[in-house]
Amino acid sequence: MPQAQVGALQEMSANTSVIETDAVVIGAGPVGLYQVFQLGLLEVKAHVIDALPYPGGQCAELYPDKPIYDIPSVPVCTGRELTQNLISQIAPLGATFHYSQVVNSIQRQADGRFLVETSQHTRLLAKTIFIAAGVGAFQPRTLQLDGIEAFASKQLAYSVQDPAAYANQNVLIVGDNEAALQCALRLCSGNADGHPHKARSVTLVHRRDAFTATPATTERFRALVAARHLQFLVGQPTGFDEAQGVLRALRVTTPDAITTAVALDTLLVFQGLSPKLGPIAQWGLELERKQLVVDTEMFSTSVPGIFAVGDINTYPGKKKLIVCGFHECVQAAFGAMPIIRPGEKVMLQYTTTSTKLHKVLGVESKA
Amino acid sequence: MPQAQVGALQEMSANTSVIETDAVVIGAGPVGLYQVFQLGLLEVKAHVIDALPYPGGQCAELYPDKPIYDIPSVPVCTGRELTQNLISQIAPLGATFHYSQVVNSIQRQADGRFLVETSQHTRLLAKTIFIAAGVGAFQPRTLQLDGIEAFASKQLAYSVQDPAAYANQNVLIVGDNEAALQCALRLCSGNADGHPHKARSVTLVHRRDAFTATPATTERFRALVAARHLQFLVGQPTGFDEAQGVLRALRVTTPDAITTAVALDTLLVFQGLSPKLGPIAQWGLELERKQLVVDTEMFSTSVPGIFAVGDINTYPGKKKLIVCGFHECVQAAFGAMPIIRPGEKVMLQYTTTSTKLHKVLGVESKA
Repeated sequence: MPQAQVGALQEMSANTSVIETDAVVIGAGPVGLYQVFQLGLLEVKAHVIDALPYPGGQCAELYPDKPIYDIPSVPVCTGRELTQNLISQIAPLGATFHYSQVVNSIQRQADGRFLVETSQHTRLLAKTIFIAAGVGAFQPRTLQLDGIEAFASKQLAYSVQDPAAYANQNVLIVGDNEAALQCALRLCSGNADGHPHKARSVTLVHRRDAFTATPATTERFRALVAARHLQFLVGQPTGFDEAQGVLRALRVTTPDAITTAVALDTLLVFQGLSPKLGPIAQWGLELERKQLVVDTEMFSTSVPGIFAVGDINTYPGKKKLIVCGFHECVQAAFGAMPIIRPGEKVMLQYTTTSTKLHKVLGVESKA
Repeated sequence: MPQAQVGALQEMSANTSVIETDAVVIGAGPVGLYQVFQLGLLEVKAHVIDALPYPGGQCAELYPDKPIYDIPSVPVCTGRELTQNLISQIAPLGATFHYSQVVNSIQRQADGRFLVETSQHTRLLAKTIFIAAGVGAFQPRTLQLDGIEAFASKQLAYSVQDPAAYANQNVLIVGDNEAALQCALRLCSGNADGHPHKARSVTLVHRRDAFTATPATTERFRALVAARHLQFLVGQPTGFDEAQGVLRALRVTTPDAITTAVALDTLLVFQGLSPKLGPIAQWGLELERKQLVVDTEMFSTSVPGIFAVGDINTYPGKKKLIVCGFHECVQAAFGAMPIIRPGEKVMLQYTTTSTKLHKVLGVESKA
């Protein structure tokens, strides 16, 4: 790990607490969840980090309602059902989930453990790491306008943490999905206690007069447009105006090629999420075409103690199927045990017959 | 394959027909069934051979009613449920099952295909073979008396094909399970049409006065014993008497150490099934501690065209779990395609999105 900074821990732990753990799983998609299960059977409680605010990964984000037919012994299930079933399965195993954050850095410490830090300042000191990051962390699709990213985290945002921050502002929203329309409705009406957070004006821009939001949300949105509580403009963002480092307006070009400058204080963009490999590429792990190279004995990356399972890894014969990721979790969990509990002989036990596993799973053993 | 007999096909096919197929799967346990599924997605219809008269392998034979907790996204299911779900899942894929038979020989033919012959004289000419035989073929536990096997298929049998064969005979049954007691009841009462197949006498021997048969069967059995329609003797077989090559009596030693010679015409033994690796050891495949050595790219044995998946194979890191066998089926199926359809570029498709797979699975694609 070329960029490991030994000793950084002591400096940085002055202010924030560090969670010590045997295992960190990066990614709460189906494979990350099953990694929690396999670790749990070995009595290893994992901490799980995911960019999304909920479990399921691609299954939750890309195809929650679409049928999957190739999970073994499950003739058909949706991405949502698959996720829910895995969440039920791991419920007894006591994992801790850290949602809505990505891992920014992994640093090997002097004692061999890894300091994992996330975008929400969660800090974990882990004996082992399991990267189950699939196609990468789901992050907002950015607005493709040259130079506009300079306003990110100032006047440009891709999510709303605190609607009160936009009270009495002119807010321009770009997008047609549920998040975009919900945001428009929320800022337009303020909160339930007398609307103190109501924006001064809310304008939503989308390239055509149709939405991917749910019919109910779309109906409420159109009603507020009709009542002139908010504005809807059909057109594409094609530029912006700034003055003295302040974003003043977004230029929107309509289908009949007229460009309007829409004045704004804040620009909120909701164009969905797309997966990004992100900082994984900077962790010093061997990559091959953006995949982490692993062995097939324990699915270890080139850095001992860091394993990779699921769509993010590659090895001869690799097929990017959920069922293959599930298998990899088994061997990765066993492969990690010499690091987690050195010197202990770990035996494979069967959930059907092992009273020890029945205890771990919270089910009664039958005589 | 040292013992391959090239050209044997033409001689042997004179009398019996040969089924030509792309793939033979040996073993109808969960992994064999999922091998059928993965081959099916690639539009390869398989022929499946199993020693048992039904699918499920160990799951059906050893723990049909016991819970399994580690099938991914299935928090709990019994061995029977797992089997039923897999049977449902592969139903659209058109596999053919050959039950109650074991593979006796595999012979490589001049054209590279394999001639597979079973104990029921099923003959298949296959481009590829997938051995998913688990711990081996389930076969009856034999009676452990020196020299008694000389009477097998004459006066000694481990199953009953035709009860009429025992009409008017003195039948001695060894065993305490459902099969043993059911057989006693059947031979004692004959069939429904006026009892023409009734045995002259039926005696059941078991080492103690308790049975593993179902309570209902046990109750019927005890009632017939009480009514003196059949005899029950507590004791262990410790020897036998023969004269001029004919088995005359089984010597049974009772708990108080008295040995009785029980005269008999036929000896039927029901001591359950136990898995036997059987002729697999003679097929010339590389073995390591009775496991088939495979690579981890396509789970090929040492003979190209013969793959091994599930508990029967071994490779570095191997864990004998069903979930691992499922994964192996994926790579074995893809690994076999250059042999099954040479020159064709086979792409991985997803059951969630591929209209081609939806057609294969008989489900409608949604726009």
